[in-house]
Amino acid sequence: MIYDLIAIGGGPAGYLACERAGHCGLKTLLIEKEHIGGVCLNKGCIPLKTLLYSAKVKDSAEYGEAYGVTVKDISLDHGAVLRRKDAIVKKLTAGVRSAVKKAGCDILDAKGIIRGRNEAGYEVETDGQIYTGKRLLIAAGSRSWIPPIEGVAEGLDSGYVLTSSEMLNLTKVPGKLAIIGGGIVGMEMGSYFHSAGSDVTIVEMMPRIGGNIDEEIAALLQSEYEKKGIRFITEASVTGIRDGIVEYKQNDTIRDIRADKVLISTGRKAWVEGIGLETIGVATDCRGIMIDQHCLTNVPNVYAAGDVTGICMLAHTAYRQAEVAVNHMLAEPDVMRYDAIPSVIYTNPEVAMVGETPQSAREKGMDVTEKTISMNFSGRYMAENQGGHGIIKIVVDNRMGTLCGVHLIGNYASEIILSAGIMIEKMLTIDEIQRIVFPHPTVSEVIREAIFQL
Amino acid sequence: MIYDLIAIGGGPAGYLACERAGHCGLKTLLIEKEHIGGVCLNKGCIPLKTLLYSAKVKDSAEYGEAYGVTVKDISLDHGAVLRRKDAIVKKLTAGVRSAVKKAGCDILDAKGIIRGRNEAGYEVETDGQIYTGKRLLIAAGSRSWIPPIEGVAEGLDSGYVLTSSEMLNLTKVPGKLAIIGGGIVGMEMGSYFHSAGSDVTIVEMMPRIGGNIDEEIAALLQSEYEKKGIRFITEASVTGIRDGIVEYKQNDTIRDIRADKVLISTGRKAWVEGIGLETIGVATDCRGIMIDQHCLTNVPNVYAAGDVTGICMLAHTAYRQAEVAVNHMLAEPDVMRYDAIPSVIYTNPEVAMVGETPQSAREKGMDVTEKTISMNFSGRYMAENQGGHGIIKIVVDNRMGTLCGVHLIGNYASEIILSAGIMIEKMLTIDEIQRIVFPHPTVSEVIREAIFQL
Repeated sequence: MIYDLIAIGGGPAGYLACERAGHCGLKTLLIEKEHIGGVCLNKGCIPLKTLLYSAKVKDSAEYGEAYGVTVKDISLDHGAVLRRKDAIVKKLTAGVRSAVKKAGCDILDAKGIIRGRNEAGYEVETDGQIYTGKRLLIAAGSRSWIPPIEGVAEGLDSGYVLTSSEMLNLTKVPGKLAIIGGGIVGMEMGSYFHSAGSDVTIVEMMPRIGGNIDEEIAALLQSEYEKKGIRFITEASVTGIRDGIVEYKQNDTIRDIRADKVLISTGRKAWVEGIGLETIGVATDCRGIMIDQHCLTNVPNVYAAGDVTGICMLAHTAYRQAEVAVNHMLAEPDVMRYDAIPSVIYTNPEVAMVGETPQSAREKGMDVTEKTISMNFSGRYMAENQGGHGIIKIVVDNRMGTLCGVHLIGNYASEIILSAGIMIEKMLTIDEIQRIVFPHPTVSEVIREAIFQL
Repeated sequence: MIYDLIAIGGGPAGYLACERAGHCGLKTLLIEKEHIGGVCLNKGCIPLKTLLYSAKVKDSAEYGEAYGVTVKDISLDHGAVLRRKDAIVKKLTAGVRSAVKKAGCDILDAKGIIRGRNEAGYEVETDGQIYTGKRLLIAAGSRSWIPPIEGVAEGLDSGYVLTSSEMLNLTKVPGKLAIIGGGIVGMEMGSYFHSAGSDVTIVEMMPRIGGNIDEEIAALLQSEYEKKGIRFITEASVTGIRDGIVEYKQNDTIRDIRADKVLISTGRKAWVEGIGLETIGVATDCRGIMIDQHCLTNVPNVYAAGDVTGICMLAHTAYRQAEVAVNHMLAEPDVMRYDAIPSVIYTNPEVAMVGETPQSAREKGMDVTEKTISMNFSGRYMAENQGGHGIIKIVVDNRMGTLCGVHLIGNYASEIILSAGIMIEKMLTIDEIQRIVFPHPTVSEVIREAIFQL
């Protein structure tokens, strides 16, 4: 069978590419070895957000008195939360499968391995069958990166150490939970399990949590969670794990903490092995498959998108890369840009960012001005966040007169950040932004206020 | 004393104009007869949103079981909610006053009346003193419009009938509350008092509630609140009010309902009387003071902004008009546009809209396409809205290839609508919107999904 396009991997990049390509008339095959929807839908964003919303409902009840609402006997039923999560994931994966089929694509639930090329295109084997694609999209995704810590392999085997995938199915809330890595996933998992009743400690190698978010916002996020009762151990590297104990080194001293479970959330690695890249000579670097601005690899008509490129491991980057790839196949003008890709941490308060931090801008030699103001400039924020410490930081490119970075900590940040992304992507000038009507009273008005205070 | 600018009225239009003008070096005087911050800050948006957030906290606890969170003995302390509201209003009005002063403006807490003109400018009298402004900004605001119903005057006198201002200070939650007028304020008040324990009936003259929002969304909002227990009587005109009874006519039949309190929320009217407009010949029409695209009235150097123009009684329209007026004073190019002014109803679920409805577009003779999809296309919406019926409706201008209307019902709508407003204001084409990276998983992704499903 010869297809116009074969996509290897049914996560956000793979399934969306098939949907778009199918709608444009390309004969398309999607091959997925595990679960359609990928990590995002099955073991990542969506299940975790389901958990986090339950935590938010609990938190809201717990802090209700500040808003004149009192309740008694608050309890979170972790089992019910997991069942609800499973039901939602099931519904959404079924939706994705049906959308792909509706676009006229074939789906194979099997592992696909590239075997070489023939006159018609590239050969992909699944279950002993060979399919030929005139074009390939490699969207094989990523897997958890496990740091080489003594005892970690044994811990993973015994179920004492977990990655985020297993953590999402843990039926019993651990009494003491140690989280290695305070990035997005570590913070979100810590947030949920803290609300669910765990005593959480987060061990982070860097001086601050939150990955590449703005330093000041990282510090605020940490302080909010310290107030809630999460313990942070920063600038510490874990040196050993054995049953019940996590040992770490901080300031040249070895210390340890007790833990009933250990979550490893130290990042992910592009999945480039075992899919036959070498048979057609697809080039990779330390991050993953190398692609150009059309998401083309070094091999003609072979594209890659999503985590497997290792550029920016977010579902929405994968979506956009997939679309750029399909547009290139269809000779539609389009290029992939990475300047306005938002990033969100669904903690409570939420954190969201898009574009440059003051630091990243200066490292690039940009001439920038920054302005930070309290979210309490928004009447709505004050109305809904008693004692809130949210801030917005904006970064302006002085040469262009445009906004080049927006950083928020405070609720609704996740839904506001799109506006900031549009401003950056469309290179709106400060003058233009000043002439936009912001709805009142919303938290989004803090963007406007920060700009006027520049 | 001669000022570069005298603003009459210290609501959103007046105070923001002074802030902006002051920062640009104009010698400015702000005259406010009642409370700085105007209706919005003292008796409108902000206090009501404070109340509504408390209601949301209560609702969240009440429906927590769907998310695995159970509580007992939920209670909302209306007195505590009011005290919190007062504290927030106090803080915010103090903030506005200090921002105006910081911009170098003078403030007079008194009633200002225009008395005529002299060689230097326009004369405004307050407390027997005459001040001269080279320019005037009339931002006198609006007041509740009271329909000529039998018994309404007596009801207002006795405190049985209230406008939204009094309603916000009502210390006892009424057992049975009748609301006359199901527009934004009627719906928001109904929402709060329903959550606070009132048995609410909304009487609306039109066939549907929600004012000028999209018909389908209005029907959904009504059905959501019917499910919660609010009763709606539409196409009914109230014919009489007497203690304990509201009498109305529906289908030529006179009926009545019992009520412990009656809220009149039938709209507002520009405040054009008693401020001396006639002394300098400022022209008005049935809506209010007539202005051009620079917010200039028919009298040179006399501007008007906000509710007093009667164009669009929203605080953010007032803000923008004020800025346009000040930019015109400073010879900065700027014009007032009304195509992308968002509108929000802070019910639960929230409603938000910007731009044309399919109906309003067709009435203007525009060639449009519309697309309506369920918000359940957003994974986050599904995760956070068990059994939710939210929708998004988009309206596309076929001739221009641009988005011209976005209508949402579902939570976070209030904070998402800014993105849609920017797309409309900047006249982004559908192609351009397709190339924007929407953060995943957010509810804002429904805009993207609707556009791809066009």
